Amino acid sequence: MIFDPATDKPQEECGVFGIYSPQPADIAWLTYLGLFSLQHRGQEAAGICVSDGESFLVEKDLGLVSQVFDETRLDKVRLGGARVGIGHVRYSTTGSNLRFNSQPLTVRTNKGILGLAHNGNFVNAREMRQEMLDDGVIFQTTNDSEVMLNRVARLARLDLIDATARAMRELQGGYAVVLMSRTQLLGFRDPNGVRPLCIGQRDDGAWVFASEPCALFAVGAKFVRDVQGGELVWADRTGLHSLQVLEGHKPTPCAFEWIYFARADSQVDGTDVHESRIRMGEQLAREYPVEADIVVPVPDSGIGAAIGYSRESGIPFDYGLYKNPYAGRTFIAPTQEARELKVKLKLSPTSAVRGKRVVLVDDSIVRGTTSRQIVNLLREAGATEVHFRVSSPPIQHPCFYGIDTAARKELVASTHSVEEIRSLIGADTLSFISEVGLRRAIAGPGLCIACFNGEYPAGVPLENDVNKLALEV
Amino acid sequence: MIFDPATDKPQEECGVFGIYSPQPADIAWLTYLGLFSLQHRGQEAAGICVSDGESFLVEKDLGLVSQVFDETRLDKVRLGGARVGIGHVRYSTTGSNLRFNSQPLTVRTNKGILGLAHNGNFVNAREMRQEMLDDGVIFQTTNDSEVMLNRVARLARLDLIDATARAMRELQGGYAVVLMSRTQLLGFRDPNGVRPLCIGQRDDGAWVFASEPCALFAVGAKFVRDVQGGELVWADRTGLHSLQVLEGHKPTPCAFEWIYFARADSQVDGTDVHESRIRMGEQLAREYPVEADIVVPVPDSGIGAAIGYSRESGIPFDYGLYKNPYAGRTFIAPTQEARELKVKLKLSPTSAVRGKRVVLVDDSIVRGTTSRQIVNLLREAGATEVHFRVSSPPIQHPCFYGIDTAARKELVASTHSVEEIRSLIGADTLSFISEVGLRRAIAGPGLCIACFNGEYPAGVPLENDVNKLALEV
Amino acid sequence: MIFDPATDKPQEECGVFGIYSPQPADIAWLTYLGLFSLQHRGQEAAGICVSDGESFLVEKDLGLVSQVFDETRLDKVRLGGARVGIGHVRYSTTGSNLRFNSQPLTVRTNKGILGLAHNGNFVNAREMRQEMLDDGVIFQTTNDSEVMLNRVARLARLDLIDATARAMRELQGGYAVVLMSRTQLLGFRDPNGVRPLCIGQRDDGAWVFASEPCALFAVGAKFVRDVQGGELVWADRTGLHSLQVLEGHKPTPCAFEWIYFARADSQVDGTDVHESRIRMGEQLAREYPVEADIVVPVPDSGIGAAIGYSRESGIPFDYGLYKNPYAGRTFIAPTQEARELKVKLKLSPTSAVRGKRVVLVDDSIVRGTTSRQIVNLLREAGATEVHFRVSSPPIQHPCFYGIDTAARKELVASTHSVEEIRSLIGADTLSFISEVGLRRAIAGPGLCIACFNGEYPAGVPLENDVNKLALEV
Amino acid sequence: MIFDPATDKPQEECGVFGIYSPQPADIAWLTYLGLFSLQHRGQEAAGICVSDGESFLVEKDLGLVSQVFDETRLDKVRLGGARVGIGHVRYSTTGSNLRFNSQPLTVRTNKGILGLAHNGNFVNAREMRQEMLDDGVIFQTTNDSEVMLNRVARLARLDLIDATARAMRELQGGYAVVLMSRTQLLGFRDPNGVRPLCIGQRDDGAWVFASEPCALFAVGAKFVRDVQGGELVWADRTGLHSLQVLEGHKPTPCAFEWIYFARADSQVDGTDVHESRIRMGEQLAREYPVEADIVVPVPDSGIGAAIGYSRESGIPFDYGLYKNPYAGRTFIAPTQEARELKVKLKLSPTSAVRGKRVVLVDDSIVRGTTSRQIVNLLREAGATEVHFRVSSPPIQHPCFYGIDTAARKELVASTHSVEEIRSLIGADTLSFISEVGLRRAIAGPGLCIACFNGEYPAGVPLENDVNKLALEV
Repeated sequence: MIFDPATDKPQEECGVFGIYSPQPADIAWLTYLGLFSLQHRGQEAAGICVSDGESFLVEKDLGLVSQVFDETRLDKVRLGGARVGIGHVRYSTTGSNLRFNSQPLTVRTNKGILGLAHNGNFVNAREMRQEMLDDGVIFQTTNDSEVMLNRVARLARLDLIDATARAMRELQGGYAVVLMSRTQLLGFRDPNGVRPLCIGQRDDGAWVFASEPCALFAVGAKFVRDVQGGELVWADRTGLHSLQVLEGHKPTPCAFEWIYFARADSQVDGTDVHESRIRMGEQLAREYPVEADIVVPVPDSGIGAAIGYSRESGIPFDYGLYKNPYAGRTFIAPTQEARELKVKLKLSPTSAVRGKRVVLVDDSIVRGTTSRQIVNLLREAGATEVHFRVSSPPIQHPCFYGIDTAARKELVASTHSVEEIRSLIGADTLSFISEVGLRRAIAGPGLCIACFNGEYPAGVPLENDVNKLALEV
Repeated sequence: MIFDPATDKPQEECGVFGIYSPQPADIAWLTYLGLFSLQHRGQEAAGICVSDGESFLVEKDLGLVSQVFDETRLDKVRLGGARVGIGHVRYSTTGSNLRFNSQPLTVRTNKGILGLAHNGNFVNAREMRQEMLDDGVIFQTTNDSEVMLNRVARLARLDLIDATARAMRELQGGYAVVLMSRTQLLGFRDPNGVRPLCIGQRDDGAWVFASEPCALFAVGAKFVRDVQGGELVWADRTGLHSLQVLEGHKPTPCAFEWIYFARADSQVDGTDVHESRIRMGEQLAREYPVEADIVVPVPDSGIGAAIGYSRESGIPFDYGLYKNPYAGRTFIAPTQEARELKVKLKLSPTSAVRGKRVVLVDDSIVRGTTSRQIVNLLREAGATEVHFRVSSPPIQHPCFYGIDTAARKELVASTHSVEEIRSLIGADTLSFISEVGLRRAIAGPGLCIACFNGEYPAGVPLENDVNKLALEV
Repeated sequence: MIFDPATDKPQEECGVFGIYSPQPADIAWLTYLGLFSLQHRGQEAAGICVSDGESFLVEKDLGLVSQVFDETRLDKVRLGGARVGIGHVRYSTTGSNLRFNSQPLTVRTNKGILGLAHNGNFVNAREMRQEMLDDGVIFQTTNDSEVMLNRVARLARLDLIDATARAMRELQGGYAVVLMSRTQLLGFRDPNGVRPLCIGQRDDGAWVFASEPCALFAVGAKFVRDVQGGELVWADRTGLHSLQVLEGHKPTPCAFEWIYFARADSQVDGTDVHESRIRMGEQLAREYPVEADIVVPVPDSGIGAAIGYSRESGIPFDYGLYKNPYAGRTFIAPTQEARELKVKLKLSPTSAVRGKRVVLVDDSIVRGTTSRQIVNLLREAGATEVHFRVSSPPIQHPCFYGIDTAARKELVASTHSVEEIRSLIGADTLSFISEVGLRRAIAGPGLCIACFNGEYPAGVPLENDVNKLALEV
Repeated sequence: MIFDPATDKPQEECGVFGIYSPQPADIAWLTYLGLFSLQHRGQEAAGICVSDGESFLVEKDLGLVSQVFDETRLDKVRLGGARVGIGHVRYSTTGSNLRFNSQPLTVRTNKGILGLAHNGNFVNAREMRQEMLDDGVIFQTTNDSEVMLNRVARLARLDLIDATARAMRELQGGYAVVLMSRTQLLGFRDPNGVRPLCIGQRDDGAWVFASEPCALFAVGAKFVRDVQGGELVWADRTGLHSLQVLEGHKPTPCAFEWIYFARADSQVDGTDVHESRIRMGEQLAREYPVEADIVVPVPDSGIGAAIGYSRESGIPFDYGLYKNPYAGRTFIAPTQEARELKVKLKLSPTSAVRGKRVVLVDDSIVRGTTSRQIVNLLREAGATEVHFRVSSPPIQHPCFYGIDTAARKELVASTHSVEEIRSLIGADTLSFISEVGLRRAIAGPGLCIACFNGEYPAGVPLENDVNKLALEV
């Protein structure tokens, strides 16, 4: 997994948004609003693509939604008679944060101009791309989307819907995609529904597809339903349509959506995120009780589980770590010493922990470096004991479905026992929620927990090597 | 008071930082770190001034510390043999966010080059400035600092320390100032200590002055003590010195430091901020109990008081409002409708409030517009009752000591009764902490609560009109 | 043709540069120098692509070479072991100055990564592109280069040299191209040699291909020879190679290279540019003598012909029009009135013309609007007569080979007689050099003068419509 | 003098512009146009100040006029009812190109807000500033303007006109200043008229003051007259007024205006610039004839003198050096080798010089480094002889009146004989025009030629040291 040195969290790759309005609407503005509320899913790049049936405009660049799109830039994708648009926010790995890889990707094909934005990974994209290269196709990006679009285009005699359905059958992995032509908005999801996608509708009839419901609400739409695994939905002048392209797959949405990625105010596949986090904390308290004075979350993602732990254990919840809201990525950190400062400048203990036995609740441990620093900060601030509780099991395997993964050897849990990790981070006790407990807390229809147990529901790349997912430039 | 439409909070004007090192040190970098941890006190402009005893460099601009200072820009104030530096972060009112008003202000005087950064306001600056104008002085900014520096310079026969002490005697108001020459660092505070300033020291002997202790810790310094009201302190080659310039004034630090401004991990004038907020919540629960299901803070500043309310009342604390960490100032809001969206895009209810009677805890109500929207959001999300509890008394009077204040008529509490405000914001009940309760919660030596009760401890401008504080361009 | 309102000149589309060094060299810097000296051939975008045999980096953006490439940006394409690089400067039409159309275009193919930069146009690119679209190919730009690269890639079983040669046989038009893989630099020119390309070599053995010799000299290379029409040359570890792909075509280089495009210090296809311009002026004086007091050039491109006219006629040369060197494209011109000001702010008569009969020498007249303003300026400054002499024949036909052409109806000479144009621009007399005279002045082996006489040596698009050259997005 | 390494020319410090319109007008736009045509007088910074009688706005920054002022920035100084404005372009020395030193400088005084822009230097500013410092005045810039404005303000009982007149009597040197209040535009010139300033009027009655007439014409004004040395002029609602503040001084305008600074289309103090340059060339040919084949100017400033030399000598004028119009300041030159490249990339010989005996005509030689490179380029291009002719005498003394001067030891002519310089630059012969010849060519009423003969008409600084002119920060 890729780590922001100051968070040491797994990183979601993307958020997607699409809208089709039967009447002309300010599609650019609505897409901006949708992306703004999906910003937590990707902070490296943002893009918007809009069409009015004739013109087809795209703007995209590196940066936050609000950095890429000032009024001037947003005006560049404003069209008076606009009806359809898609948008994308992206987290990208170091070294590949190249402007040319930004989405939406827009291409001209035999089916007209198309724009595509996706979240997730195709595990067999590398082989398909090699096949096409051998066949004389050229590639300008290292983006899965370009493989998808080439596949759709090469099915030259099929219309857009049929070609997309065919491509869904050929491409494997965990993904959620929005795709637009001048007159249609398509959305589809991998057969297991690993990556999320939901449908909403505005009072004026406009259809909206988005990674999370918060983006529906941001544009004044009501939640209608989640897209099913293997389902292709599309909106056009004649309304909303659906085709169940791939059937018989067990739904296994990514557990990390509830653990960490999704916003606390979201529901994913029918299960409320905040409530799940409360239940994870309650479960942790049942599985790993401890005698202590206060329960302290690592803000902000540990708050839900900390409340749950507090409720189940009866130990008071307190605000023991202040988080500097300005401590983002732009901090200058020229030296190693400075990089270590990042955690200290971001998180700072309050007086609540002084002389207290603290239960510290976080959502995950990846490399453990940040966890060690936090434990240390608490001790310096006078905590007498630090009991670390984690609302996810140990991460031991890479993700092939769109969560950016580092080499397996960097995952502390893939090479160390829980006791070794405890010693490494300097906690008095350390406990991870059990897989069974996690499943119970989320209580969804099924889960992809491959990063915990190595069982990949949606296939693995040929050589089962995460590094082989990256497309060569 | 000036309102960010999406916060409706009073706005601190500034944070200041100064450092004097007996040995050459990376003063620019240390000042950057100090400012970074004071960013919450001002987000409109940032500046750093450094000297090595000969060169005297300043860089300042509009923007966050991390926006103004990338590595290239920070290098511009790096000096190999640097020993002294000051820094400033500033919140400025709409219309006056002019680059030329940025601080530190640097001028050449008969006492050599001086740099000055201040937090607060001089209530008689306007008259002093007019006197000087009549006397042939020119002014290039609309900044109080320029009045102060002119005063110091015109005391031409006094040395820097004596001239500064004299100026302190002449200028009235609430202020905390850091001032540097090529070889000295000065810090001083108004006689009542309305605005905060503290002293720290690093292991290598360097002295640090800062608005809050968090800035001391950010540069590896230990907290030594607060500067006293009316005290002038300075550091130079011979160590730290102090002169009690003004005596016999009752200490009345600004209550809003504990209510809202200061970081939860700070101590101000010996009183812990987080603990005060907990006590405010407990006090509120005792003063205004209510039957309800959950206590929900308006994040982030309402968290402490909400925990306190929950503890005292026994009603469970819950995370009922998600705060979008990317919802800053840069959001495009071209229309009125869009401006209203700002609150919605920033705060979003979680499932915790559905079907619940909610105690909503916030730190203050200024105009009430945001409060109304939040109450509305909670009701839409299914809250059955909303009981609004505020950890400060109603704001009825403008601040003359550096908190940026709007016209009195915009303060909802200056023209409405509590019942009228309740009706306006749509809450089931509304209660503000009492003045007595607030004093008890902070338990400091005395407090300036002029914005609540109109009793101004440090003087008022000639016409008692907040608009007369602004210096004309 | 596309007109800068303040020049009313035909616009060259591009300049290309390529270098292959047998030893590692600072390829990025050398390419920068080459582009810098080709800046006159295109001012809208610039790009550099470099490889060291493994890495393959590209940077490109809108702007002048010196605007796109500051030190930071140039460092991004610097590779320690670099051996091969290409560069491009581009003039682009209004509305298509899109960043994604910048060159070099880099793609991954079955022959490895390729980078391509071209000058000119393929007249049958539109049809080839449509064929490929029908066959399922996707296109991401509206650039001829992408058609060429797709063609090369689809010849999947041929190696790069053979595939490029085959593509040369299929694509028609006027073009000069540089193309690089990780280990090879290719250059080729259309069978008629309409667009220029020459070869140079540095003392260290590095081979350089460039649009004009000035770019060779800028990198310390000596001129070796021009690439022949229809010839493919390439440089790699084994030296410089050549293949005469297309034979039997008459060389017809574009006459406008000598009239206007090429730098005065260049030789194109063996004929010196400055000397040609002198001869054009001499020829004009013989064809259209006039009694007058001074000969005045429209700076800078009319200087050579004016000197020639002066020499042949014996009428003194004088500096009658001052040219403001800062009058570039960035001038704000919000209103029509302001747009007319552009000429006035750019060109201003000196006292030399007062009371004089002036022979005004310019290289071409496209729409005539600027010419009218210049004549007017001279009269206002006191010129008693203005005799306009033009060193090119009337432009009556669009260019299909890479000179950006407006609709034919905007060409004043395609709809007006010489006498009508004279009346329109307000000159006392107006004369254009004859076609025969132009051929004699250039004295090259043959010339493309299609824009004067409508005889297109290298084919025309299917519908003989310049608008059909533009590839649809 | 300060040298752009690629020009080695003396650098004018500034151009000034002011306008007063009896009716509301687009003052910002007109000032922009005026500055645009004065750009050759200063390229480092630009600023515009505008008032409508109430508001008083200023925008200024580092960069060319067209870089500082895009439409958005110009709109910031647009006022519906604007009547008065001033503007400034500035060349600044390395190390002092600080943003805070940009002009116009705007200050609030007892006479209301004032804006000031100046060209030139006050030789006693340093002492006046020290006196004021001793008296308790503070200074925020190192700009002469601030000294002037303080002087005007301190004459507190005088009105603006009287105070300005008094300040003119106290400040010595060579200067031309425009100064505005909310309702008045002032212009004044040092008693000797060393720096130029002229007056124009538009048909709508608006009065314009500018450094050169080209700026009058750019805004549609007619030339009225030059401001006299020692004269103070002002425009307000009641028309144009004049006061001859200082009388009895001999007019000695700076000779370099005709030699190099002023545009070829300007008249300065009644003498035409282009005609003077022709006469300088003719004079040179008479003083220093030589047998040769062609006369070649160093473009662009040597063109006039080269034409004169050609006419008088009968040797044909030719275009022997191409000047790359894009070779400005932004070229990256990381190494010494690269810096030498700057000349080569800027100037390139044409075929005209091959096998020819060349008379090379330039306007001045400062350090001689560029001259040496140009001679070398000509020889490499095949010139058999190079006879260097310079249309100014050897520069041996620093300028104290606003031409930025380096240390005297860098002036090649202050330490070398003409023969030594000839040897150094590698010319076959080298001749400078005589002082007498220069005076005859300009034929003005008198001249400041202090940089040639060391006779300073307008006073020198206390220690006669150019370095003592710089105000300490």
